[in-house]
Amino acid sequence: MSEFKTVRGMRDLLPEEARIMKYIEAKARRTAELYGFKEIITPIVESYELLSAKAGEEVRSRMFVFKDLGDRMVALRPEFTASVARLVATALRTEPRPFRLFSVGSIYRYDEPQKGRYREFWQSNFELMGSNRPEADAEIILLTDSLMKSVGLKYAMKIGHVGVLRGIFNQEKLDDKTQNAVMQLMDKQLYDDALRMLKDAGISKEGLEALRRLVELKGNNVFDVVAKMKETVAGHEKAAEATENLNEILKLISQSGSSIDIMVNAGFARGLEYYTGVIFEVHVPDLNIALGGGGRYDRLIELFGGDPTPAVGVAHGLDRIMLAMQEQKALRGIGQEKTVAVIPVQEELRAEALKIAQQLRSQGIRVEMEVMGRKMGKALEDADRRKIDWAVIVGERELKERAVVLKKLQKREQATVKIEGLAEAIEA
Amino acid sequence: MSEFKTVRGMRDLLPEEARIMKYIEAKARRTAELYGFKEIITPIVESYELLSAKAGEEVRSRMFVFKDLGDRMVALRPEFTASVARLVATALRTEPRPFRLFSVGSIYRYDEPQKGRYREFWQSNFELMGSNRPEADAEIILLTDSLMKSVGLKYAMKIGHVGVLRGIFNQEKLDDKTQNAVMQLMDKQLYDDALRMLKDAGISKEGLEALRRLVELKGNNVFDVVAKMKETVAGHEKAAEATENLNEILKLISQSGSSIDIMVNAGFARGLEYYTGVIFEVHVPDLNIALGGGGRYDRLIELFGGDPTPAVGVAHGLDRIMLAMQEQKALRGIGQEKTVAVIPVQEELRAEALKIAQQLRSQGIRVEMEVMGRKMGKALEDADRRKIDWAVIVGERELKERAVVLKKLQKREQATVKIEGLAEAIEA
Repeated sequence: MSEFKTVRGMRDLLPEEARIMKYIEAKARRTAELYGFKEIITPIVESYELLSAKAGEEVRSRMFVFKDLGDRMVALRPEFTASVARLVATALRTEPRPFRLFSVGSIYRYDEPQKGRYREFWQSNFELMGSNRPEADAEIILLTDSLMKSVGLKYAMKIGHVGVLRGIFNQEKLDDKTQNAVMQLMDKQLYDDALRMLKDAGISKEGLEALRRLVELKGNNVFDVVAKMKETVAGHEKAAEATENLNEILKLISQSGSSIDIMVNAGFARGLEYYTGVIFEVHVPDLNIALGGGGRYDRLIELFGGDPTPAVGVAHGLDRIMLAMQEQKALRGIGQEKTVAVIPVQEELRAEALKIAQQLRSQGIRVEMEVMGRKMGKALEDADRRKIDWAVIVGERELKERAVVLKKLQKREQATVKIEGLAEAIEA
Repeated sequence: MSEFKTVRGMRDLLPEEARIMKYIEAKARRTAELYGFKEIITPIVESYELLSAKAGEEVRSRMFVFKDLGDRMVALRPEFTASVARLVATALRTEPRPFRLFSVGSIYRYDEPQKGRYREFWQSNFELMGSNRPEADAEIILLTDSLMKSVGLKYAMKIGHVGVLRGIFNQEKLDDKTQNAVMQLMDKQLYDDALRMLKDAGISKEGLEALRRLVELKGNNVFDVVAKMKETVAGHEKAAEATENLNEILKLISQSGSSIDIMVNAGFARGLEYYTGVIFEVHVPDLNIALGGGGRYDRLIELFGGDPTPAVGVAHGLDRIMLAMQEQKALRGIGQEKTVAVIPVQEELRAEALKIAQQLRSQGIRVEMEVMGRKMGKALEDADRRKIDWAVIVGERELKERAVVLKKLQKREQATVKIEGLAEAIEA
């Protein structure tokens, strides 16, 4: 046995899995097209400085960092947003807004490997930059819905709004450090700890009471939940504005004709510090981790030296979508194009066989040419075992009539067919 | 201006270039399907040990090598074949032959950047493993032809055979080191230096004379060239066998019905030491570098600890194909799907507008929803400037009749159209 293996945390996708991954990627690309997002390709290797500019300490410490041969400190991207932000702050700086940018590819994080979690994994990433309006937020959520439905997944969308929580924090004059620490506790749903920290930080009685009630507000009756949120934050102007913004986004979604299973959760916080508005995640019953998530981050581009640019975006985990599809048995019929084995009866006919193979391919038919020089019986047996659909047997007698034998392998039927009409016979 | 930029040697592909790259990738994938090759996805990060096992010193010294956080010596792949060989020597070891494996993705080499040459670039890679027969070689050459034609390129295929040269070297009992050094000189077309080295190494007068004549044999009359090669190597048994093998491959190709502009070159050598049989490259007039190349390497899998497995493969440089398409003006019509801008006349109608956008998308139409809250005139001006094809204007009066205004932007035509028939009106 060979001593070579994949590096710890990396893995191969063999044909069956690779086909599903590429199917999901194609669906993400199609979604991008339908929503007017343009694809860009940014490098996997970026400067450490860029990639660490917005990453929290947790992500930063798990990057693949190294020096290149020119002694530059570089890293493998742990996400796409920093690269997109770099572009928006440089090459695209003077282009008119809005931008709709799409990327798909592999990203790298040095996490402890476990079921469904590797150090190299795939994401599709959508960013809508230049608009601060609720229709932009609605578009990002709706395209996420389109992608999930296009791969056949049943899921629920969890939606919250960072602006509601931050609105209260700001009015209470909490410093950034405390705010971020509280958001992180909330992200882990450690609400008691979060409330205790708020109390210790000197939040007012009214503020604490509002937050205590907020974190318990959630449910599928989204407009009921939002109405209760409004009551709860009534005294906090910024939080009330944020709640109204959430209300508008939800109204747009519900009136768009897309039926989405939405759960509004007023205490929902996502780990990343740069969110400023609506946030959301895609959840499926069988997986305890989000398939994707995103939200609004209106101050990020400035962090990268660009002009102030409101933005909303989402990243979808293609590996996790694949896992969910496997769990939900949503894989039927993916990539099941018919295949034809073309087999010459004797060696002297291999050029004729190859010519027929080329003709079929030019007509859009998948062909496996017999390249092992096997006797017909062996070649047929192999084709049968591998569930090939059709065999074209190229023999001398039939060739004289410009014909071949066409066998439907699983059904054990066969017929002599003119070469001219072969493609039609196979497709019929 | 932002201080962030791409790392030296890396670059962004903005939408226009990314679209061409993804178009070529899709053509490569389609070619793989038509020829029965199954896609696999291997990691970009592999062990340094694996990647350096077959790489010559030149490639090895230009790899992106580093230690991961677990102190493992790893590198970014400089090509695909080592990863495929690893799989064939391990996970696929007991699977029945032949394998037809396809990969596409980015690879990494620390070369001096210049026009069209970056440190991150893209390849499609095909390997047919398990067959030592000329029909396998013909398949790899034919699929390369199919790919080049599918992207609209005019090109020439340069074909040689390492076995002819090596056959003489072996009969002359030249050691491996000398053979490889001579092949490298020949690869650089330094034939005088190569012949001098052979003389110094003590080659026989007949051997030297045969090689002197061989390196001058080339041309488009491929069977003439091969006939002359046969005469030239008549006294060298292994070289004569190799020439006959080349003859069979060329016959299969010429009889397959594909018209390929082939140049046989008996002195053609490709740099890599592991080739054992036919070798070939794709050339276009406007570029002095091959768009792709490959050949037979029957002893590689053993080098990776696998069972002896004859193999033939090819790698295509997607960046170079893109350059050639630009040179040959073969880009017309790529990715020119029609786009529709959906614009509400007033803010109160944005939910209606979004609903219409969703309906059109579900019917397969690309929609850019107006998300900037611009007045209709501004939004139309912007759509016009960006060469959007259609605008759907959602106004109160028309909505009462369940209709909208449809504008054909470049032609300055417009009509009131029922929402129900909108998709049909756009596609007509």
